[in-house]
Amino acid sequence: MTEQISIGLMGLGVVGTGVATAIRERSHALAQRIGAPVRIDRVLVRDGRSERPGLSGDLSLTTDPDAILKNPNISLIIEVMGGEYPALHYISAAIAAGKHVVTANKEVMAKHGPELLSAAAKNGVMLRFEGSVGGGIPIIGPLLDDLAANDISAVNAIINGTTNYMLTKMATEGLDYSTVLKEAQALGYAESDPAADVDGVDAAFKLAILASLAFRTVVRDSDVFREGITHLGPSDFRYAKELGYVIKLLAIARRTESRVLARVHPAFLPISHPLAKVDGVYNAVEMEGDLVDWAMFQGPGAGARPTASAVLADVVAIGRAIVGDARVAPPPLLDETRAIETLDDLKTKYYIRLRAADRSGVMAQVTRVLGDLSVGLASVIQNPVGETGKAAEIVITTHLARERDVQQALQELSALDFVDEIGNLIRIEGRIE
Amino acid sequence: MTEQISIGLMGLGVVGTGVATAIRERSHALAQRIGAPVRIDRVLVRDGRSERPGLSGDLSLTTDPDAILKNPNISLIIEVMGGEYPALHYISAAIAAGKHVVTANKEVMAKHGPELLSAAAKNGVMLRFEGSVGGGIPIIGPLLDDLAANDISAVNAIINGTTNYMLTKMATEGLDYSTVLKEAQALGYAESDPAADVDGVDAAFKLAILASLAFRTVVRDSDVFREGITHLGPSDFRYAKELGYVIKLLAIARRTESRVLARVHPAFLPISHPLAKVDGVYNAVEMEGDLVDWAMFQGPGAGARPTASAVLADVVAIGRAIVGDARVAPPPLLDETRAIETLDDLKTKYYIRLRAADRSGVMAQVTRVLGDLSVGLASVIQNPVGETGKAAEIVITTHLARERDVQQALQELSALDFVDEIGNLIRIEGRIE
Repeated sequence: MTEQISIGLMGLGVVGTGVATAIRERSHALAQRIGAPVRIDRVLVRDGRSERPGLSGDLSLTTDPDAILKNPNISLIIEVMGGEYPALHYISAAIAAGKHVVTANKEVMAKHGPELLSAAAKNGVMLRFEGSVGGGIPIIGPLLDDLAANDISAVNAIINGTTNYMLTKMATEGLDYSTVLKEAQALGYAESDPAADVDGVDAAFKLAILASLAFRTVVRDSDVFREGITHLGPSDFRYAKELGYVIKLLAIARRTESRVLARVHPAFLPISHPLAKVDGVYNAVEMEGDLVDWAMFQGPGAGARPTASAVLADVVAIGRAIVGDARVAPPPLLDETRAIETLDDLKTKYYIRLRAADRSGVMAQVTRVLGDLSVGLASVIQNPVGETGKAAEIVITTHLARERDVQQALQELSALDFVDEIGNLIRIEGRIE
Repeated sequence: MTEQISIGLMGLGVVGTGVATAIRERSHALAQRIGAPVRIDRVLVRDGRSERPGLSGDLSLTTDPDAILKNPNISLIIEVMGGEYPALHYISAAIAAGKHVVTANKEVMAKHGPELLSAAAKNGVMLRFEGSVGGGIPIIGPLLDDLAANDISAVNAIINGTTNYMLTKMATEGLDYSTVLKEAQALGYAESDPAADVDGVDAAFKLAILASLAFRTVVRDSDVFREGITHLGPSDFRYAKELGYVIKLLAIARRTESRVLARVHPAFLPISHPLAKVDGVYNAVEMEGDLVDWAMFQGPGAGARPTASAVLADVVAIGRAIVGDARVAPPPLLDETRAIETLDDLKTKYYIRLRAADRSGVMAQVTRVLGDLSVGLASVIQNPVGETGKAAEIVITTHLARERDVQQALQELSALDFVDEIGNLIRIEGRIE
């Protein structure tokens, strides 16, 4: 019988404090769920002298990682420092030392997950990371356990709350990108350097993790095509609405028999699509499986307490296995070989906004360029811009077409003398009928 | 090492056929997920001679339950017959015989779940029932595992696809109840006797299961207050829209420190509420927890393949425990004592529609009756009906009020000579600000 599960907590920032607080708040309930009490034995902090209001009295702080990694009493590490280094070193060392690991580190898991999972399997320890995607929303557990019988063919997700908040604001209030960014920064939703969010870096980390697990193959963040939201203008939101769509920063991974395409970019989604209705800072992940058809998980995708919810779910799962004397469940296998597809091969529908001279024959030529590349038109809107007869904004939606053909068409169009500017290209997603 | 997991399948209707087909389709993947092959050893059918196209050649059918229940080779029963009897007897006998059980039977679990879970714990077997609520949507797994660290305070759900389809149709097309029912029956969404769906019986079964697990206490279907959708009229949908709401058949369970209130009834929900956006035959379950705040799970709530997805997730979980030589995880404990609250004590907001004489002083009297019972008015709409000056439809929404006071007010109002008819009373839900 396990008498107590001793935890080494690495990191005492916002999430670490949330985890420590949550464990203290509910020690009785956790002991009951697990079958043995859990206790934070030691906490790694960067600076041992800083004040942690309300916590410092209870916790034994250290600035020496070895006080945890080489501590034989500690059987479980919770890593919530964030960032690639030194977190990666500590997780590796913990696994090598035969300790179970719970981490909420999306960057480490996106870049080094496959190697860490192999190492964990080899060392007979568990490595769990529910908190690395979607905050407190159960996603990895449902994917690996509840949908275990399904052949998962696609993951479609809104997994960055900052950009979803900004896009919701731009859509509902007609504001432009920089105004909304300032507002998000003032509210603490966006960092002073917003690149990780607005360029899709954060979403690409999370998508790499989900795609790897869903398709049982290695997908790294560098395999994910990535395009941010900085080029979206108010007119794109107006046209989206006019055409029956909303604009979301989507993280999409799809597989065929032998290939995987993973991408993060703004997309038009039909207003009736479940993901189209996820507004504000919330996250949602939809999975397509051959038995279930689809299932979607939604909730707060960040924050100290939601992330603590996910971290503690992993602690409970590991604790139950320790207490139940279970042979440690092997970590998910990423043993299927699938090539990473480039965006060139994507087949989807497109929204194209361009500005051209407002004279007869222009639309005919635009249509011919697209038609020659097998890009079929689904709808066309033409609006005069500025002085009458001078210029027109042309907005086209296409039928299913190949990305490479559409890109070629845009090049050819921008070379035409009567085309002033290609305003934007946005992919149209949702189930392709 | 376990060589093979032999399954006894009880029931070969729509779901049973779906389960058998899914197991055959993916025998390799299941063996890989579990660590040992699974095989359907024997199938209980009502009539051994009936044709099961595409399946009969592979399956060993029997009409004798003891061929499964007393078969020492079979370690796991899948019960997908539906209905209270004889399913309850078979599940009990399987548990007593030391066999693990997977069931999708909401009626048995809602009525006898607590006793069956105790018996399973006593006999050291697992009893899992993900398929009993929400078809293929992961709900019970996330609740018990992924949200294990949370103190769950509420479950809010749309867990009957038939009625959600009907309410969506009534809202979007302005059709009346009986027209929509006929349409749902023609499409196979509603039974020829629709009572189990439209009276909320099916939803009450599922809510009893969810409330028991969420609050770790015994909630039976008979503890659930239940009101169906048959009394909803087109005008209710028009007023809902005008006031910024949609009408859903909600299954709501909330707990306080010592009490639980569980109820199924039509409700007004603000259009911005996540559940308000769940349309058509889909299901969604939202849970409120103290760490996660809320999480919502959505997808197809019925059907052979989605339900097979849930049933097989349970088979995988049990199979992994068998293969991993794990001490069998104890089933969820329902050991907290909470009294069942009656609807009288509910505090929510209300929509009241009534018809009264269209003359001065009427509104003043209506307001006085409500005010005397501490039912505060939030909004009033008054529309003339038929010949001018003869009658008016009065639609009231209230501030937070007690159910017993509102019911008393309705009695007093209906006794007034100028009140022709109380048209409807619908509770207004969503987070109460």
